[in-house]
Amino acid sequence: MSLLVVGTTALDSIKTPYAENPRLLGGSASHAAVAASFFAKPHLVGAVGEDFPRKYINLYRKHGLCLDGLEHLPGQTFHWSGEYEINMNNRRTLDTVLGVIENFSPTLTPIQARLPYVLLANCAPDLQANVLDQMRRPRFVVADTMDLWLNIALPSVLRLIKRIDCLVLNDSEAAQLVEEDNVIAGLPRLHRLGPKYVIVKKGEHGAILSGPRGLFVAPAYPLKKVVDPTGAGDSFVGGLMGYLASQKGSIDKNLRAAIIHGTVTASFCCEDFGLKKTTKIKTTDLTKRVRELHKIAGW
Amino acid sequence: MSLLVVGTTALDSIKTPYAENPRLLGGSASHAAVAASFFAKPHLVGAVGEDFPRKYINLYRKHGLCLDGLEHLPGQTFHWSGEYEINMNNRRTLDTVLGVIENFSPTLTPIQARLPYVLLANCAPDLQANVLDQMRRPRFVVADTMDLWLNIALPSVLRLIKRIDCLVLNDSEAAQLVEEDNVIAGLPRLHRLGPKYVIVKKGEHGAILSGPRGLFVAPAYPLKKVVDPTGAGDSFVGGLMGYLASQKGSIDKNLRAAIIHGTVTASFCCEDFGLKKTTKIKTTDLTKRVRELHKIAGW
Repeated sequence: MSLLVVGTTALDSIKTPYAENPRLLGGSASHAAVAASFFAKPHLVGAVGEDFPRKYINLYRKHGLCLDGLEHLPGQTFHWSGEYEINMNNRRTLDTVLGVIENFSPTLTPIQARLPYVLLANCAPDLQANVLDQMRRPRFVVADTMDLWLNIALPSVLRLIKRIDCLVLNDSEAAQLVEEDNVIAGLPRLHRLGPKYVIVKKGEHGAILSGPRGLFVAPAYPLKKVVDPTGAGDSFVGGLMGYLASQKGSIDKNLRAAIIHGTVTASFCCEDFGLKKTTKIKTTDLTKRVRELHKIAGW
Repeated sequence: MSLLVVGTTALDSIKTPYAENPRLLGGSASHAAVAASFFAKPHLVGAVGEDFPRKYINLYRKHGLCLDGLEHLPGQTFHWSGEYEINMNNRRTLDTVLGVIENFSPTLTPIQARLPYVLLANCAPDLQANVLDQMRRPRFVVADTMDLWLNIALPSVLRLIKRIDCLVLNDSEAAQLVEEDNVIAGLPRLHRLGPKYVIVKKGEHGAILSGPRGLFVAPAYPLKKVVDPTGAGDSFVGGLMGYLASQKGSIDKNLRAAIIHGTVTASFCCEDFGLKKTTKIKTTDLTKRVRELHKIAGW
């Protein structure tokens, strides 16, 4: 099965206490679509500028992404520069150049508009809504968001999440959105904003799914070393949606396993800068780690 | 089967943003022994002063604790006063009166010295060592500790943990002890200090076991409301050891389930002040919540 992934296609310059990596392939849609590609065929919707390296287009193609929705526009590619502290939980943005993403307004082809699975990866909520407006009866729509949009575009976020099936956000963003520090206590309030399913990401502590079948407390894959967590959340939701799109049966039946596949995809993302590790692995590496996690978390 | 529990038997005065509760029954041995009592017979080793209320002795008896090792000494009972902030993850000690615990040096009876399971609940490492010195070939020795002892009695802690089977501590204490923020990366260093098994408690994020069979990533029981987390760690290790003492077969075989039983016992502890909730539940409440957690965490 195929899925549509809209989000940012970016160049990331990432500093950590140990290294500096300029102009890596990054952006929520890049991470999510590559993650999804291990399980299903992602149709990428995004925009890049004249400075976007040819080698990154080749990398997209190597992963089988459909690039009909990737627009090449005059100007600069979206560029994010950030710096991580030693414990990797704190990061700060050094610089952001919106570039071509600022006025990007995609028009979907009829094929794209009929894709059954829709991942509105992290980007401006009005861009997410613009794409959702064009979809014809999608089977399952997931949106990811971040604190930036809660801070500067809350009304747009609230309008969007009324219309989606599943909201994905991290624990501090969930706390901010419903003004409740206890994740479990905040879940009913998140559902009242619209989505049938809510997934709260807790980084190294795993994730929590809330839906019609109740709660699912998912473990994270235990990593000895986190080199660069940029894009881990995008890889998580990409792996999750790719897996879902690849499975028969109901969403309810497959969602727990999808979260585990997303978790494992995200674990590889953290092991090197940008997409360096994720673009080196195979689907068998993911399924091996899923089996391992099953052993580690069972009793 | 029976187990020995040594630790503090205290009066706790606990403030939270919502309430104030003076002179509750508290202390690591009280929490741990009551938690263990749902599964096995705990022999309590501790000391109380002349101010220790009769009703708390009755509560111990109601839970079937053997009190032959509870000394009644002239002077005050150990008294801890603390205050929690709104998110319950930060607490500060307002006052500590050591009282009779300061010079407490127990002499075990021959029956106590032959108990197969030994829980050195959180207290001064020299007191833990004193009890361990008197044990005759115990089957399984677990020690819990806290940052206070790492700060003021590190050499004693290091001497003790060379001699135990399993060390239990929380994530920030593990990071402090081996100077490594990544819990997973720190585990081999913790094993090199002596213990075959290491359990790192992560509060609302569950716990991690490391041992000869590899890792076990255990979920926490999801709670909507935490009223008072005091004693949750002691309840965890008490439930764990009580369950282990009640089971046939190898430690390796039973330890994962023991951690889950400890987790669930701790979840009840958090739902009211001190031991108020834990002393109201039955073993069936615990097994029901274990089954529930199994559903919540499986895939």
